[in-house]
Amino acid sequence: MLALRPVLLVTGVLVAALGLTMLIPMCVDLLSADETHRADWSAFAIGAIIAVFTGGGAAAATWGPIERISVREGFLLTAASWLSLVVFGAIPLALGGLNLGYVDAFFEAMSGLTTTGATVVTDLDHAPPGALLWRSMLQWFGGVGIIIMAFAVLPALKVGGMQIFKTEAWDTSEKYIANATQYSLMLTQIYVFFTILCFIALWAFGMPAWDALNHAMTTVATGGFSTRDASLGAFLTVGRAPLDLIVTLFMIIGSLPFGIFLASVLRGDWPRLFTDSQIRFFITVVAGLTIIMMLRVLTIFEDVGIFTAFRLAVFNVVSVLTGTGFATTDYNAWGPFAVGFFFCIMFIGGCAGSTSCGMKIFRFQVALAALRVYSRRLAHPNGVFVARYNGRPLTDDVFVSVLSFFFVYFATFATIAALLSGLGLDTLTALSAAGSAIANVGPGLGDIIGPAGNYASLPDAAKLILAAGMLLGRLELFTILVILTPAFWRG
Amino acid sequence: MLALRPVLLVTGVLVAALGLTMLIPMCVDLLSADETHRADWSAFAIGAIIAVFTGGGAAAATWGPIERISVREGFLLTAASWLSLVVFGAIPLALGGLNLGYVDAFFEAMSGLTTTGATVVTDLDHAPPGALLWRSMLQWFGGVGIIIMAFAVLPALKVGGMQIFKTEAWDTSEKYIANATQYSLMLTQIYVFFTILCFIALWAFGMPAWDALNHAMTTVATGGFSTRDASLGAFLTVGRAPLDLIVTLFMIIGSLPFGIFLASVLRGDWPRLFTDSQIRFFITVVAGLTIIMMLRVLTIFEDVGIFTAFRLAVFNVVSVLTGTGFATTDYNAWGPFAVGFFFCIMFIGGCAGSTSCGMKIFRFQVALAALRVYSRRLAHPNGVFVARYNGRPLTDDVFVSVLSFFFVYFATFATIAALLSGLGLDTLTALSAAGSAIANVGPGLGDIIGPAGNYASLPDAAKLILAAGMLLGRLELFTILVILTPAFWRG
Repeated sequence: MLALRPVLLVTGVLVAALGLTMLIPMCVDLLSADETHRADWSAFAIGAIIAVFTGGGAAAATWGPIERISVREGFLLTAASWLSLVVFGAIPLALGGLNLGYVDAFFEAMSGLTTTGATVVTDLDHAPPGALLWRSMLQWFGGVGIIIMAFAVLPALKVGGMQIFKTEAWDTSEKYIANATQYSLMLTQIYVFFTILCFIALWAFGMPAWDALNHAMTTVATGGFSTRDASLGAFLTVGRAPLDLIVTLFMIIGSLPFGIFLASVLRGDWPRLFTDSQIRFFITVVAGLTIIMMLRVLTIFEDVGIFTAFRLAVFNVVSVLTGTGFATTDYNAWGPFAVGFFFCIMFIGGCAGSTSCGMKIFRFQVALAALRVYSRRLAHPNGVFVARYNGRPLTDDVFVSVLSFFFVYFATFATIAALLSGLGLDTLTALSAAGSAIANVGPGLGDIIGPAGNYASLPDAAKLILAAGMLLGRLELFTILVILTPAFWRG
Repeated sequence: MLALRPVLLVTGVLVAALGLTMLIPMCVDLLSADETHRADWSAFAIGAIIAVFTGGGAAAATWGPIERISVREGFLLTAASWLSLVVFGAIPLALGGLNLGYVDAFFEAMSGLTTTGATVVTDLDHAPPGALLWRSMLQWFGGVGIIIMAFAVLPALKVGGMQIFKTEAWDTSEKYIANATQYSLMLTQIYVFFTILCFIALWAFGMPAWDALNHAMTTVATGGFSTRDASLGAFLTVGRAPLDLIVTLFMIIGSLPFGIFLASVLRGDWPRLFTDSQIRFFITVVAGLTIIMMLRVLTIFEDVGIFTAFRLAVFNVVSVLTGTGFATTDYNAWGPFAVGFFFCIMFIGGCAGSTSCGMKIFRFQVALAALRVYSRRLAHPNGVFVARYNGRPLTDDVFVSVLSFFFVYFATFATIAALLSGLGLDTLTALSAAGSAIANVGPGLGDIIGPAGNYASLPDAAKLILAAGMLLGRLELFTILVILTPAFWRG
């Protein structure tokens, strides 16, 4: 039997909590010097009231101790809570001074909570500060939400091979929920620590405090929302140090497995930061892709020095690879190779257990291990071959999980791209929007939605499809798709 | 120990046999009324001499009985024979009146033998008849070659899940090679029968005999080479019946599993043509996609009747889906949805054991079965779920094979697309050329290589990359890739 009570209870508490956090942008608007911006406070006040009362009401109606949550309830809870947070998080954006319809606000909130970073706001430079802060906060919440999920929920649900991150030490114990809560709080502290560090670094090196605060939140969340239309490009000349390199560093930190940061803090297990197979692979990928793009930049722009080429390359590679989506320049102008390159790498993503997006490094490692074993079995049918990941043997079960994930990923990508084409988008826009949505990158390719563009002009139906794609991508596809199967609802 | 003798022997025999068949286009050129075309006979004479002597020499040097072929020798033999046939099949095209360099001739021969149908010949309407016939013959050989391989070789090699087509009845017996040879001959007879039937149908309904002969060969092979620059579009007005529908019918026949035709003939097992799970799924896919495209055509062209819309839809859907690549019209003009649609469906392909290309219907069935089982396991971790295919249970081993295939397919696609972008091709051309090559379709999308275009203007490096992609796609990727792994060469 599916028990809906825990689902409603937890979702209600989360929505009510989200409502309370709306008071922060409300205060920021009230403190604004600009009178029209000041008037925007009411959007957040109304949003807060709706969220607190609806969420609180649902929680109150279902209040009581939760003893255990079954796997199916876990799926429902995950999907319901993310979707509800988006639905309510969009309200202040729809009511406020950004002049968004609810569909646009929903798209923006989804893009925020899923740390995608695609935007429909056309005039960020003159937007009310509360709305800007709310966008950043949504990304920041989304970032920590996904870290906690990847630690406490997805391995238990065995989604797309995440079972290999089960930490046997505590999740088999009786105190599952108590322990999960405690560890989640510690993960949040680490996340807060890096956000503060990022803020200090950006501010100390010349970014205005307000922008540094917003960018710190959206950088560590590998989200990509900015306070400016020119994205990070607006600040490159004001900084006393290359701010893009600072942002690059913190995008990388946001893409590392926070569970390993936790192990380092809790057990002093710092060496794992350098020996963990996923981290090593990720850093290798970043280095390799940066070198390729650096060579490309050097051949395209003859007057660019090596250091500038490195900055341009590493920033854009990390921004796209990790699914952040900040822009300092329009790489559409770097020629067709760069366009194809960035299109492909956006699917890769960062490490599992981080805020980053895409298919995740460990899945490529597992898939490569599967191929290695498989091609050995092909050549030597009588041999016995076993692959390992971080020392643990990989079973065919994990291979099927991970390879299914790839299959569904591409099927989802193709479906979304086909639907977008059906709505009249040109091929490049449709393909890159679809990829950018499920990989939670943000910007696409081409003139309309490229790094210099914006999603505002797309039809509403396209925005809703892309919002669905973002949620699918962020929740590792199966968390949503399983709920849509008839078998899920059969006892 | 790898024994190279059988590999050299069989490859040599095949190359020598290919040389002998070059005498046919030689005679056609000699009989030509046009004097410049008549002069083209020497290209085939020289090509025949080179192939017969080289192939015959290799065979003579390694002559002797072959007792058994190990799995690894099977891989080597498959790769070596296809590549050698292309290398020698290209010679008359390079020497003859088409004015092709060897790289172009190699591309054209690869496109022929892999039944791709991409062409670099710019003036087919005035090409010598021998060269036209040779192109058609290469596709025809490629078609029967892949049927025999899918029946006798690939299941034994367990490539990409093909092991589920192992017919236990005979391949475990002592007389493996004798039986395989005998069944292969019967498969060839069926193939010849359908080719003759297609020729008669096209000729009877108004296509000139010469063109009917060529198109019959490239239709049943789902190849797509034509005798005209306008492809099949050149004949639509001369026929007394809609020739495109006849071609559609035979493209569908070419995409059905020939092993089941064989079972029907040998054991009178005709019902299997209607009960086989792969055939039913394929026909459903064709019907579904045709309806979608028919509706699209009806909305785009207001003055088009239902029958014309059906013709346009079913012909183009089947032509792209089965990897044939004939064109009657430029569907780039049907709007972005059609472009995205045809881009996606080219990857699907026809049935395993047919001449068709792409990823093959059965892999989608197996992948869907894997997902069904997987999502049930996710929702009900303690349940036991088994998937079946044509009545046989599917193991995790088969799932890993098939899902690995998808993974490597997309990785190969992305790699080729990235390499092509690096050579300066625009994104749409690079993506569609890469997809079209590994799916063995032929035409790509866009102005350059679309249904109205041609591969002649691409740089040589791009042609070689695409030729490699065609071979990879035709030989189900792993047949080639396994040979490139170090583990293959270790004892």
